[in-house]
Amino acid sequence: RKLNEKRIDCLIVTKPANVTYTTAFSGDDSWAVITKRAVYLLTDSRYTEQAQKECIGCGIIQRKDSMVEAVAKLFKKLKSVRTVAVEKSTSVAAFEALKKHVKRRLKTAASIVESIRMNKDSSEISAIRTSARIAAQALKQSLRYIKPGVSESELAGRLDFQIRKLGATNSFETIVAFGPNASRPHHQPSKRKLRERDTVLIDFGAKYKGYCSDITRSFVVGKPTRLFEKAYDAVQQAQTAAIKMIKAGAKIQQVDSAARDVISEYDLPVYGHGTGHGFGLEIHEMPFLKADGKGELKAGEVITIEPGVYLPGKLGVRIEDDVLVTETGCTMLTKGCPHGPQLSH
Amino acid sequence: RKLNEKRIDCLIVTKPANVTYTTAFSGDDSWAVITKRAVYLLTDSRYTEQAQKECIGCGIIQRKDSMVEAVAKLFKKLKSVRTVAVEKSTSVAAFEALKKHVKRRLKTAASIVESIRMNKDSSEISAIRTSARIAAQALKQSLRYIKPGVSESELAGRLDFQIRKLGATNSFETIVAFGPNASRPHHQPSKRKLRERDTVLIDFGAKYKGYCSDITRSFVVGKPTRLFEKAYDAVQQAQTAAIKMIKAGAKIQQVDSAARDVISEYDLPVYGHGTGHGFGLEIHEMPFLKADGKGELKAGEVITIEPGVYLPGKLGVRIEDDVLVTETGCTMLTKGCPHGPQLSH
Repeated sequence: RKLNEKRIDCLIVTKPANVTYTTAFSGDDSWAVITKRAVYLLTDSRYTEQAQKECIGCGIIQRKDSMVEAVAKLFKKLKSVRTVAVEKSTSVAAFEALKKHVKRRLKTAASIVESIRMNKDSSEISAIRTSARIAAQALKQSLRYIKPGVSESELAGRLDFQIRKLGATNSFETIVAFGPNASRPHHQPSKRKLRERDTVLIDFGAKYKGYCSDITRSFVVGKPTRLFEKAYDAVQQAQTAAIKMIKAGAKIQQVDSAARDVISEYDLPVYGHGTGHGFGLEIHEMPFLKADGKGELKAGEVITIEPGVYLPGKLGVRIEDDVLVTETGCTMLTKGCPHGPQLSH
Repeated sequence: RKLNEKRIDCLIVTKPANVTYTTAFSGDDSWAVITKRAVYLLTDSRYTEQAQKECIGCGIIQRKDSMVEAVAKLFKKLKSVRTVAVEKSTSVAAFEALKKHVKRRLKTAASIVESIRMNKDSSEISAIRTSARIAAQALKQSLRYIKPGVSESELAGRLDFQIRKLGATNSFETIVAFGPNASRPHHQPSKRKLRERDTVLIDFGAKYKGYCSDITRSFVVGKPTRLFEKAYDAVQQAQTAAIKMIKAGAKIQQVDSAARDVISEYDLPVYGHGTGHGFGLEIHEMPFLKADGKGELKAGEVITIEPGVYLPGKLGVRIEDDVLVTETGCTMLTKGCPHGPQLSH
């Protein structure tokens, strides 16, 4: 239907998550070619066996030459295909090579597969639910390692191992930040050791059957400072305010500003990142909940809500949960995950 | 010098590893703009604090709008810049947006930074050495978990945890494949448990100070089958033959075929992937050692050598080591890593 809408006979899919979505292939370095009649997966010998298992109903082409040459060869057989679109996320290099080798009218198209992917079906939601449950469980099992002397790096490793043991992988590189390190939203775990009365920020997620989860928790070891308490309250209230706004038809900008307004009211600096984002096969996907975000939420979308407060040299607090947008509100997918700010283990 | 060679005043760097190489920035979602006079890093508020620490000597621009708008704003100040090249790995979407917003002569350029990155300097080699040493050490400490009953997924998790404990992260998602699973070169670790007389393939690497290592080992638990012994011998001989050929000036194609010829002589199917590849900030970078590879090796390049034998439904064997190309031969960087096929722990 989308091909007809866009008036194209064929879409060349190059973005890995879109290849997975349209073919069920979970490997790398492969493209999909979608016509009105068929879906082809272009892969290489490392993946042929895997593709045969995963991509039921797809034509599987084991390429020997470059990807572009394999596409050109395929098009020699697809005589009825005239107008071809290439995903806009494709590199200029690949697009130029395609223009040279594929003797068809080539254009680019943005977000065709991404816009379909926004709406999660029941099997996707089920995979995301499991992914969120595994992440929550892994954090629960890692709390006992949060004690003075543990390094950021070791704690990240402990958590990652629990995720593995539960049958999943990381949806992105785990962030563990102690004390003022947490003011850098994407801090990389270091040798820094946890001290008495320190704070802990953990941003992590699991990937199960290809689908992500994404959770952030902020904890204190011992009694929190006044400043931390204030920041934590603000972030928690901000998150609650945004979550209350969520339902099908809610304006993205209003959900975003609901959270930011609370932080402002606390007289704390408003975070520079988005209030949340969709996720699924990718850890960041549409919709993006930003201050200048357009459009409305729709039922079936799965998003994070993650306001934060960052005071360089002092502290960082962020709380992030995953929700499924429904007609009447939303369903929390990360309810089972231990909450801060006090550690209970 | 490269800007003069290519007759451009400025290069827009969008590939993350190239941004890291030219600015020392280790975060994501950022671009570099390089003129003959200065290097600018365009990042957002999540990374400003980190960029100020890491990118000494760079102009750091904290963007609020889209990346392309931030570039356009910067160019308003760079009046002497006329001809601008954008990396060819940039997406068509970003290139089209740049063409629209940046009022300059825009062209694309391939592999400018990548070609410089091929030649590793002493601090890069030192990081890669440490990365290889950590990977070797992590495997050594994980061997005791290779016993009947352990799952692929758990073993991968154990290994990853050791890498973390040694202060590094994974350079890519660890592959652990038992028995016939190893015939898929990029198998994803599953619940499959190790059995008596099973075989084990582990392909993994560490990332230390941004630099990767990449190692594969094949083991047997108990007495190997005749077929496995033959495949292992073939792969080992193939690797040795290729490594013997390596030195500055060696033709890439000859190094590649040295390994393939040995597999053929054993009357085993020749692997479909390359014999090896460069690595550094990325796990796969130039040069690529393939059957149709062009050019010669140069001193200072760091590459893997990784022939394999894959018999679907039966077995998979691959051995991969990392070497530094020198004027007279090469230096093994992964010597300290436990060797197969027998487990010794």
